[in-house]
Amino acid sequence: MLDEKILSILRTSDTYVSGEELCKLAGISRAAIWKHIEKLRGEGYEIEALPHLGYKMTAIPDRLIPSEIKWKLKTKTLGSQIISYTKIGSTNDVAYGLAEKGMKEGLVILAEEQEAGKGRQGRRWASPAKSGIYMSCILRPEISPAEIPKITLLAAVSVATAIRNMLGAVAEIKWPNDILVNHKKVCGILTEMKAEQDRVAFIVVGIGVNVNTSMKYLPRGATSLREETARDKTISRIDLVRGILQTFEAQYDILKKEGFEKIIEEWKHLTAMLGAHIKVVMAHRQIEGTAHDIDPDGSLIVRLDTGVLEKVSSGDVVMVRRHE
Amino acid sequence: MLDEKILSILRTSDTYVSGEELCKLAGISRAAIWKHIEKLRGEGYEIEALPHLGYKMTAIPDRLIPSEIKWKLKTKTLGSQIISYTKIGSTNDVAYGLAEKGMKEGLVILAEEQEAGKGRQGRRWASPAKSGIYMSCILRPEISPAEIPKITLLAAVSVATAIRNMLGAVAEIKWPNDILVNHKKVCGILTEMKAEQDRVAFIVVGIGVNVNTSMKYLPRGATSLREETARDKTISRIDLVRGILQTFEAQYDILKKEGFEKIIEEWKHLTAMLGAHIKVVMAHRQIEGTAHDIDPDGSLIVRLDTGVLEKVSSGDVVMVRRHE
Repeated sequence: MLDEKILSILRTSDTYVSGEELCKLAGISRAAIWKHIEKLRGEGYEIEALPHLGYKMTAIPDRLIPSEIKWKLKTKTLGSQIISYTKIGSTNDVAYGLAEKGMKEGLVILAEEQEAGKGRQGRRWASPAKSGIYMSCILRPEISPAEIPKITLLAAVSVATAIRNMLGAVAEIKWPNDILVNHKKVCGILTEMKAEQDRVAFIVVGIGVNVNTSMKYLPRGATSLREETARDKTISRIDLVRGILQTFEAQYDILKKEGFEKIIEEWKHLTAMLGAHIKVVMAHRQIEGTAHDIDPDGSLIVRLDTGVLEKVSSGDVVMVRRHE
Repeated sequence: MLDEKILSILRTSDTYVSGEELCKLAGISRAAIWKHIEKLRGEGYEIEALPHLGYKMTAIPDRLIPSEIKWKLKTKTLGSQIISYTKIGSTNDVAYGLAEKGMKEGLVILAEEQEAGKGRQGRRWASPAKSGIYMSCILRPEISPAEIPKITLLAAVSVATAIRNMLGAVAEIKWPNDILVNHKKVCGILTEMKAEQDRVAFIVVGIGVNVNTSMKYLPRGATSLREETARDKTISRIDLVRGILQTFEAQYDILKKEGFEKIIEEWKHLTAMLGAHIKVVMAHRQIEGTAHDIDPDGSLIVRLDTGVLEKVSSGDVVMVRRHE
């Protein structure tokens, strides 16, 4: 608690805070202040201490610390509670378990590393330590299970928007829920739910972003934000988590107030896929054609070469470059 | 194991089995046989012992004993593993938890009593001791979450068929998944699932049947099979569980091999609802009209008084008798 208090004082100050002032504000002795400063430095906070001037925080650790994320976080529900793990099996599994125990909408689980990071359809999600964002949120929307694509598309819109806002990178969505930068995957979304026949009990939205991840840890076709935009500079994962939570909550509010059409509109702005020639690989067959549109229920509409329109609700899209 | 062996010998014999023969078949001494017979009697098995003739089983206990259900059970998958509890919170919750741990399709959880029996939409399901069937099965069909109504309708068809086969009672289905006898509810079905956006991980089908349940334990509008068909006689819950598992597996095979249309056809044979005047109470509104048809996706199609057809995927149906 006292560490939090000291951090909060240092964060809000643009200049040096004198030792005397810090003692007064925190309500402890100078010797005690020094002990806490040392402890915070041990956690990775860089705090300058100059004679006559006092203390100044110059850098926060590159770790997904809940209090750092909450600092300046402009959301009401999403991230109201954040639990961060150093190492974990899968953030989705932990969030799912907590949701089953009744945890409320808005809880966010973060991990520095996942030992069994999950992708769609039982695949793995590469989750090396301290370089990516592995995050799962609990939502409890009043929807039917058939509406789950709405949440997945909404999540994709949120992440793509947050990346664009923060990094200026042209993040694009590939149906249903991959985020690409320069045609390579930087983010995947895994939506899981518990539901009755006509009522969703809860949804866990898992978001995996390759932020500062080194290429050697990533599968083919994947890249990291740093690789595509900053190369020499470490991107703040804390800022990006905060950005994603904010855009996510904003989109979630839009869904509730204005309906899914608005989300689809946004989604269409953020994709470069419509009009492109694609191949869709489904469980037992595959089709080729042009990505024609997104259906009001979130399905992809493909125009086959015969001109027939086919609605696809599940599958993997491969962008095809025709030899002409 | 030895008890099982002795039971199995007694079950397969239509007449008395001499003590000598029993000893030989079970491979133990006469003194040991006597001890086991006493133990089985303690469990509720009625075993006659006549001098010179030997032993004969005349009744099995009125308890949902897995070995008794498996005895003569003609299924391949469903019920291949059965776990029976004396008292439990909710069979669906236990089955769901086990499915999450990877338990296979076909596992059946039974309980003599549920302390927190669950109905649809967060309601309670009255589950007094030793009088009903409270059963949950794990299924792992390769379907998308939007297809879950298929499984619910299939379960309703299975239970209604099993009741008709065993008791001759005119069990009728009320959309989506209640089973009525004489217009009163004898069975409810609660389907729950874990799913990704486009893939069901598993489904737990919970089936609650009021079999010998006394009216005093049941809510208004509900009844028990005994009340409607046998009054003075206890209905064998073991036989009914076995019957349900068998019809369920048969219908499940039909779904996989011939498709959902066949199930809907069966469903229509088993309902008295189509053509009736109904009220459908949904989350935020209600409609009145005629139950017109079942959509290929399992939704109810209602013909409003204006002639307009409305598709309903979630709601409670109330049969309305018009004052004419």
